[in-house]
Amino acid sequence: MRQLGPVTLLLCAAAYAQPQQPPPTPNSTLKSPEVNPDKSVTFRIYAPEAKVVQMRGDWMTDPPVQKLTREDNGVWTVTAGPLRPDLYTYFFLVDGVQVLDPKNNLVKTGLSSSSESMVDIPGDESAFHALRPVPHGSLHVEWYMSKATDGMRRLHVYTPPGYDSGSSRYPVLYLLHGGGDTDAGWTEVGRANFILDNLLAEKKAKPMIIVMPDGHPIKDPAQRSRSLEVFSKDLIGDVLPLIEKKYRTAPGRENRALAGLSMGGMQTLEVGLSNLDKFSYLGVFSAGVRDSAEFEKAHGDILSDAKKTNQDLRLFWIAIGKTDFLYKNNQTLLASLDAHNVRHVYRESDGGHVWWNWRIYLSEFAPQLFR
Amino acid sequence: MRQLGPVTLLLCAAAYAQPQQPPPTPNSTLKSPEVNPDKSVTFRIYAPEAKVVQMRGDWMTDPPVQKLTREDNGVWTVTAGPLRPDLYTYFFLVDGVQVLDPKNNLVKTGLSSSSESMVDIPGDESAFHALRPVPHGSLHVEWYMSKATDGMRRLHVYTPPGYDSGSSRYPVLYLLHGGGDTDAGWTEVGRANFILDNLLAEKKAKPMIIVMPDGHPIKDPAQRSRSLEVFSKDLIGDVLPLIEKKYRTAPGRENRALAGLSMGGMQTLEVGLSNLDKFSYLGVFSAGVRDSAEFEKAHGDILSDAKKTNQDLRLFWIAIGKTDFLYKNNQTLLASLDAHNVRHVYRESDGGHVWWNWRIYLSEFAPQLFR
Repeated sequence: MRQLGPVTLLLCAAAYAQPQQPPPTPNSTLKSPEVNPDKSVTFRIYAPEAKVVQMRGDWMTDPPVQKLTREDNGVWTVTAGPLRPDLYTYFFLVDGVQVLDPKNNLVKTGLSSSSESMVDIPGDESAFHALRPVPHGSLHVEWYMSKATDGMRRLHVYTPPGYDSGSSRYPVLYLLHGGGDTDAGWTEVGRANFILDNLLAEKKAKPMIIVMPDGHPIKDPAQRSRSLEVFSKDLIGDVLPLIEKKYRTAPGRENRALAGLSMGGMQTLEVGLSNLDKFSYLGVFSAGVRDSAEFEKAHGDILSDAKKTNQDLRLFWIAIGKTDFLYKNNQTLLASLDAHNVRHVYRESDGGHVWWNWRIYLSEFAPQLFR
Repeated sequence: MRQLGPVTLLLCAAAYAQPQQPPPTPNSTLKSPEVNPDKSVTFRIYAPEAKVVQMRGDWMTDPPVQKLTREDNGVWTVTAGPLRPDLYTYFFLVDGVQVLDPKNNLVKTGLSSSSESMVDIPGDESAFHALRPVPHGSLHVEWYMSKATDGMRRLHVYTPPGYDSGSSRYPVLYLLHGGGDTDAGWTEVGRANFILDNLLAEKKAKPMIIVMPDGHPIKDPAQRSRSLEVFSKDLIGDVLPLIEKKYRTAPGRENRALAGLSMGGMQTLEVGLSNLDKFSYLGVFSAGVRDSAEFEKAHGDILSDAKKTNQDLRLFWIAIGKTDFLYKNNQTLLASLDAHNVRHVYRESDGGHVWWNWRIYLSEFAPQLFR
């Protein structure tokens, strides 16, 4: 290998990307977001013509938006926090138009209009989901033909460190995203892969494969009432066989877990309880739940034969935050399970319907699996 | 498996993602972009307070931006095209603020401020890079500790259909992105994975692994002059050994190709010509090139021993568009190679410095590899 010296001119990368540079403005050198030493964060956006600029961050509760202040050069700015170290999502409202931070390429890809920018505040509290110098598993993106939807679908798969160099078979956690997310959500913003890497580095969890399918099988709004039925068919009839063919999975229900957040928590309840021959661990995070009568009607067999259900389910873990808008809804689920003596573990956390909680839930749920 | 009936209320996914719904506005049901039957595209953004809304799409040449028209309800709209079927990138300028399309979750993640929205116009001309019902390879995301940068880095890897079910070893194409992109660029917008899936389905290319590293090893602007040197060390000293350990690669220089676009084309030239013991195929797409004197000085050994160079290089493929701002720059490279009798293949296309060309170049370059 010949040594390469500096090639200054050639390395002005931007010049290759943007041949016609506009004249410089305060925007040219603007930095946003900027994490300050005290863990506060300064947000900036260049919008000289705007009348009102606000922002919404998922750490805000009341009021739900914060105003930015205009400087003379047309840059609007606000400092939030200090904030507890974590990965947060936010967006600007420029004269009411919801926009991502133009200076930030850390993006959470949402479903249709719910994409947001993200800011990562490093620190002890978020170390469990940070990218750290530990052995890393791989993330895989797979495209497959779904018989359930009669179309191409996508899913994400995490394999643990050592998967590629060995021949072991691994248990599988099927992990479902929320209503505003895609199959990339659990890694892009949920950091499921880094959470597992870190747990495994500290020997706090069993090595496992995590499969993150797409929870939105139906694009046509008129057909949405069939979503759960089609999702269930896709998961059981297409995804499971695909994964068991393509990856070195350990066989049988004792090696399969199903968990999900919000809409994915509802899917976990509905699909999981209807397929206890396939799954023996369920994790229900901040789930949308049917009302008691409807739930008891749909899952009468599970509730009426609690003895069998309690044998089948090695772990039935239900978690929600105290200020989650689905909190009361979840209490009715817990009451139904209690009334029928269906064993479960209830985890109540602070906070609401936010990723902060879902990352913590995963970090607590995963270590209990496949023991 | 129990059958699941419709659960209408629960499936209103948005209700779970956004507990506090704002009152409806024309934005609530807005659709953008909308591909019309004649392959024109209608773009819309709700911005009732804005004075001027423009957009820039990578299909535009002169003028480089297009104005949107305000409707009475505060929605701005414009129809572009009909456009040749392809995957295009665009953004809005709302009173001068560069924003992604708030209604579109198809995002090209750029480096810092260069993220853009994308619109996919299906049709015969873009079928070669479309997601089609053919066997699909897998895309892998790997995190690794780089000795060259002394930090964690990320790369993308494509493995062809059949990789997981067999034990064959595969040749490897190392494929480098441009200055405005990340290691996700060649798949997110370049669709390298689908291009290969489609070529392989038609038996037009040899099955290969494609490795897409991160071309920006240095974040600190003051250190940027060392970028090429550090990139080269990372690629040769970290990435190659990682890939050859983790993936079933065929050994030796005859099973390795290096190619890249724009900044990545420059890196291909510089790193490739300095490491002909590692690579025997080079693909230089729309590259930034040193001036003749500098190039001839840096690669005197390659130029002066054309006989050896021509033996070493099974393919030296150089492509650029007629209206690319680097067109003249590339002609000086071609003149240097001609003057020294260094064998190469020159491909001149229509168009400029755009993904349209880079996808075509990859679809023409890959079939020539490892024959």
